[in-house]
Amino acid sequence: MIRRFVFGEMIETEAILEKPQAEGGAVPFLCVDEEAMTFSYSMEDSDRVYGLGENVRGMNKRGWIYESKCSDNPDHQEDTRALYGAHNFLVVDGKEQFGIFLDYPGILTFDVGYTRRSELKITASDWNLDLYVITGENVKDIVKQFRHLIGRSFVVPMWAFGYGQSRWSYMNEDEVREVANKHRQLGIPLDSVYLDIDYMERYKDFTLNDEAFPEFEKFNEEMKEQNIHLVPIIDAGVKQEEGYSVYEEGLEKGYFCKKEDGTPFVAAVWPGKALFPDMLNKEARDWFGDQYKFLLDQGVEGFWNDMNEPAIFYTEDRLNQVMEQLGEYKGKNLDLNLFWEFKGLVNGLSNNVDDYTKFYHNMNGKKIRHDRVHNLFGYNMTRAAGEAFERLEPDKRILMFSRSSYIGMHRYGGIWMGDNKSWWSHILMNLRMLPSLNMCGFLYTGADLGGFGSDTTEDLVLRWLALGIFTPLMRNHAALGTRVQEAYQFEDVDGFRHIIGLRYKLLPYLYSEYMKAVLRDEMMFRPLAFDYPEDARAVRVEDQLLLGDGLMIAPVYEQNAEGRYVYLPERMKLVRFKKDGSCEEEILEAGDHYVDVALTDVVVFVRPDHLIPLSKGGQCVADVDFEDLQYLSFVENEAVYEYYHDDGYEKDYENPAHMCVIRMEKDGKVCRE
Amino acid sequence: MIRRFVFGEMIETEAILEKPQAEGGAVPFLCVDEEAMTFSYSMEDSDRVYGLGENVRGMNKRGWIYESKCSDNPDHQEDTRALYGAHNFLVVDGKEQFGIFLDYPGILTFDVGYTRRSELKITASDWNLDLYVITGENVKDIVKQFRHLIGRSFVVPMWAFGYGQSRWSYMNEDEVREVANKHRQLGIPLDSVYLDIDYMERYKDFTLNDEAFPEFEKFNEEMKEQNIHLVPIIDAGVKQEEGYSVYEEGLEKGYFCKKEDGTPFVAAVWPGKALFPDMLNKEARDWFGDQYKFLLDQGVEGFWNDMNEPAIFYTEDRLNQVMEQLGEYKGKNLDLNLFWEFKGLVNGLSNNVDDYTKFYHNMNGKKIRHDRVHNLFGYNMTRAAGEAFERLEPDKRILMFSRSSYIGMHRYGGIWMGDNKSWWSHILMNLRMLPSLNMCGFLYTGADLGGFGSDTTEDLVLRWLALGIFTPLMRNHAALGTRVQEAYQFEDVDGFRHIIGLRYKLLPYLYSEYMKAVLRDEMMFRPLAFDYPEDARAVRVEDQLLLGDGLMIAPVYEQNAEGRYVYLPERMKLVRFKKDGSCEEEILEAGDHYVDVALTDVVVFVRPDHLIPLSKGGQCVADVDFEDLQYLSFVENEAVYEYYHDDGYEKDYENPAHMCVIRMEKDGKVCRE
Repeated sequence: MIRRFVFGEMIETEAILEKPQAEGGAVPFLCVDEEAMTFSYSMEDSDRVYGLGENVRGMNKRGWIYESKCSDNPDHQEDTRALYGAHNFLVVDGKEQFGIFLDYPGILTFDVGYTRRSELKITASDWNLDLYVITGENVKDIVKQFRHLIGRSFVVPMWAFGYGQSRWSYMNEDEVREVANKHRQLGIPLDSVYLDIDYMERYKDFTLNDEAFPEFEKFNEEMKEQNIHLVPIIDAGVKQEEGYSVYEEGLEKGYFCKKEDGTPFVAAVWPGKALFPDMLNKEARDWFGDQYKFLLDQGVEGFWNDMNEPAIFYTEDRLNQVMEQLGEYKGKNLDLNLFWEFKGLVNGLSNNVDDYTKFYHNMNGKKIRHDRVHNLFGYNMTRAAGEAFERLEPDKRILMFSRSSYIGMHRYGGIWMGDNKSWWSHILMNLRMLPSLNMCGFLYTGADLGGFGSDTTEDLVLRWLALGIFTPLMRNHAALGTRVQEAYQFEDVDGFRHIIGLRYKLLPYLYSEYMKAVLRDEMMFRPLAFDYPEDARAVRVEDQLLLGDGLMIAPVYEQNAEGRYVYLPERMKLVRFKKDGSCEEEILEAGDHYVDVALTDVVVFVRPDHLIPLSKGGQCVADVDFEDLQYLSFVENEAVYEYYHDDGYEKDYENPAHMCVIRMEKDGKVCRE
Repeated sequence: MIRRFVFGEMIETEAILEKPQAEGGAVPFLCVDEEAMTFSYSMEDSDRVYGLGENVRGMNKRGWIYESKCSDNPDHQEDTRALYGAHNFLVVDGKEQFGIFLDYPGILTFDVGYTRRSELKITASDWNLDLYVITGENVKDIVKQFRHLIGRSFVVPMWAFGYGQSRWSYMNEDEVREVANKHRQLGIPLDSVYLDIDYMERYKDFTLNDEAFPEFEKFNEEMKEQNIHLVPIIDAGVKQEEGYSVYEEGLEKGYFCKKEDGTPFVAAVWPGKALFPDMLNKEARDWFGDQYKFLLDQGVEGFWNDMNEPAIFYTEDRLNQVMEQLGEYKGKNLDLNLFWEFKGLVNGLSNNVDDYTKFYHNMNGKKIRHDRVHNLFGYNMTRAAGEAFERLEPDKRILMFSRSSYIGMHRYGGIWMGDNKSWWSHILMNLRMLPSLNMCGFLYTGADLGGFGSDTTEDLVLRWLALGIFTPLMRNHAALGTRVQEAYQFEDVDGFRHIIGLRYKLLPYLYSEYMKAVLRDEMMFRPLAFDYPEDARAVRVEDQLLLGDGLMIAPVYEQNAEGRYVYLPERMKLVRFKKDGSCEEEILEAGDHYVDVALTDVVVFVRPDHLIPLSKGGQCVADVDFEDLQYLSFVENEAVYEYYHDDGYEKDYENPAHMCVIRMEKDGKVCRE
């Protein structure tokens, strides 16, 4: 059951399109303090709290304080309070079971037992919000109801399930060609190469660097002939430059965010001074969305939207101010306090929350200050694109994922997990974020495999890929100035070929589970706690996941480890895929196991009476035969699998012809219905 | 066997006082490339590499690149290459077993399979160094030989084994009193309160803030009457201020580091502009050491030396330059490159390696540029103090620990692990650093419990203390601006009292093991690999430690966990100390176990035929009765324990009266010999 409670008058987010009738009366479970603008709940020691989408720490979010404040934050550390998204949905699981969603576009804090271990306290910045309280049969049911409420998740074209290679940046055609060729020559599968900011002319959206990509359309075609898709980045800020048509047209039409006095709000990003299209203004959004046509027309079929928290290097006004102030420190003895002040001025230029109060949106004719709707910006940039794709290419699926997001955006695109680092602990962060994102509707997601910031190592990339082969978005991406980390840069090419190749074998299962999760409002990745709620050990497991109907995964995330502990809540079949192409199987009893996992092994666990359809693999998604299936199976009585398959490009998702049932008897006999 | 090889002419570090005769001929194990200034070794997959003292990552250092470059670095992350110390000793354990020590005061890199997984490569900045290659019966023997070579480790006064409470800063007498009183009132044991930089008059070494501490000597006495020791911080930089006697005297005598032109090198730290005493010049060192008399004379018996990498906020010259350059950015459109340049100028002011080439030392009359001897600075600051203590208080043990260090400094003081953060992963980092520091002679050590930077939580402090009760230095310390984290700030006071109280019960064992490790050149904390080298699983364990003769510890370092996996290389007895004062025991077979560990439990494992002497505890070290012992024991045949005990303050460590043997029969009968 979903109940809606209205406090004040919320600014419409369109997270929820069909709202249940608002209720009066007391809010269940929560203690409401209008004056303090808080909701609180007293937790028992055994209560667990799931959700909050893109955040650090555990699947169980207890013990930290999180902020919903979309942030351009490359420091994904244990003490990070906010990342790029604002995902205000959580489920309390324990003595009571309920979900809550705060539909609120401003900044919120979720103190989940940080200040006091037993208290959950949610604090809003103002008292205009809708609160949804959801109860159900169990946690999965609560999540499913919520997912239904927020609408169906975005679907990508099938090729977007292939392996993608990215770097900030492949600087020109030849560098992209090299990536494509190297993979093809070495037999390492590949489906996409990502173009980071340098493909543009001086970081101007919807332009091309003509020296680096003199014949982009032709080059794109050349790549497509090899079944490789180019995926360019689009930034939120539009360069302020006379003669640049996007800038001039947007300015003329009044489509950029403005300061209080009505003049354009100028903030710098990659190109220096830039203006932000007013993504919250429908007309401006339509106009911005139409700009993608420039690249669609050259055959591009996928995009990633970046810097849309929005990230701000500095605002014109603050920089001018700081430049003046810096002079005042000249000749002074800068002691601790003065020196910190001085450094603080410079380091406070970027992503300064105070700047959110310096510009305004035009929402349906109303002038709204940015801080009140901060968390909607990235969402609406991606919505601009998504709505435009529907207009411009109605019959085509276009890949789209974003850095910033709010619930509701999941209908228009996926997200990647942002600018992580080449840290072993980030494998685990990647894993833990998958179910919490799924809870909030984000199914097409993944982390920068190998790590974006800082230098990686061969073993880290291998181990991370062994998780990445399971995530819908499977992309290796690295930052400017870091060690190169394409698979072919390392010595154990066989190992990379084997692990990445396995992704393509898994595709029938992964795509089927993804589509069923989309169509049924379910989670593709689940904590063990969601399927085994009665198992006191299972509910505490923070480093294993259920993947779809029949698999459990437990990747290795410790350097130099030769294996790891795995907890089995029930009898399962361990399947080990080895580099030499062989496959070992072993049935393990419920309980604790230490499992050997060599550096190039991939280990999965099949649940009893389940089967997993596999293909024979391929060098790209187009190569993969989704009909000629093999099966991983653990049949004690009978395994029944609902197999979804479509052509991967059309949009008739609900066509019953896409679904069939595969049955396996104990003797291994398979039949399809 | 220890073999010494000489390359070029090293600058004397005095790490090793009695050097073996240098050898000619080929260096064993290593491939030497004089031109590239490298030593390299080809590793097998199963080889492990231990050592390198204070560094991030595993006990097995494979898979990363480390730098010996003493650094003021509060970011202890997986990609951190250098912390505060330079500890150039490692042991390769595998196909071959050998230790190497590079006695070299300049910057070194240790690429331990980072660039190529199978290659260990050490690169020096110039080719003037002594290389020691050590072989032995096993890893423990190699370490013991090395430890003997570098001389006996520093011994602290007994009270320094008590619990210490610190914060940057307790601002005045009343704040310190409150800390003392709260602990005493609540029955939480305490032996010391640390004074961070604000006890001084405007951060001037060897001064007191007279407003905050108007009668310091009297106040110190008041605290001592409660058995609480005040431990003030001393910084490396001496404030440049006319009328300040330390500055004036040092300047007059020419004891500060100088620029090439002979004028003083001015660099800023806490007080702003400051000068660095030339710690490498014997006369200056003696003079600086004599300054500690100011506090010794007021009854102080312990110090911590900080900022002695040396940390540099900025140099006078660089700041002037940057101030000029900043003006040039005014009015420009700062795009990506220009803005990063601009920010880089400001952020490059601090701890800029280029500044190491801008000042000089006077070593035995020779002018030596700082970069060539960078890693000796903190070592010699602490040596200045240690040598002075021997002159000024020859009969007393004075507590001393330092942030920066080089091997050799372990004879004069301990180290703390520097400015860590309130991160769960830092519990594990703390644990893993213990054996590598012990290998390098640093026995008196510990981390800032609860975490220095960033905000902590109650459960983190509890779990961290449950490791901290085992480390010789047991101190809770937190940075300015972070959440308060004294034990009494949280709700579960009983839990804190229980865990900290346990420390005092463990003291007979801990002190005995510490002193035996000192006197026998052994390691108090050892990886399982060192004691169970034939056990393929044990050699990979990275989150358990052997502590002294008879204990294994396996702390919980994951938030919300209710237990953890533990690997037992042999049958052991699990002992669980519970908050209610009870104690549960269970004998566990060799192998894998999942062990429940409630948030306020402390679990230890007793090895077979071992016994652990415990006291009945106390509110401070002076309370603890080291004669009235109880025993944790796991006796299958007979347990024999060599018990070291002295009065904790005199220096006759080798007096045989300090050692006795305690025997326990299978029937529990104990006899002392």
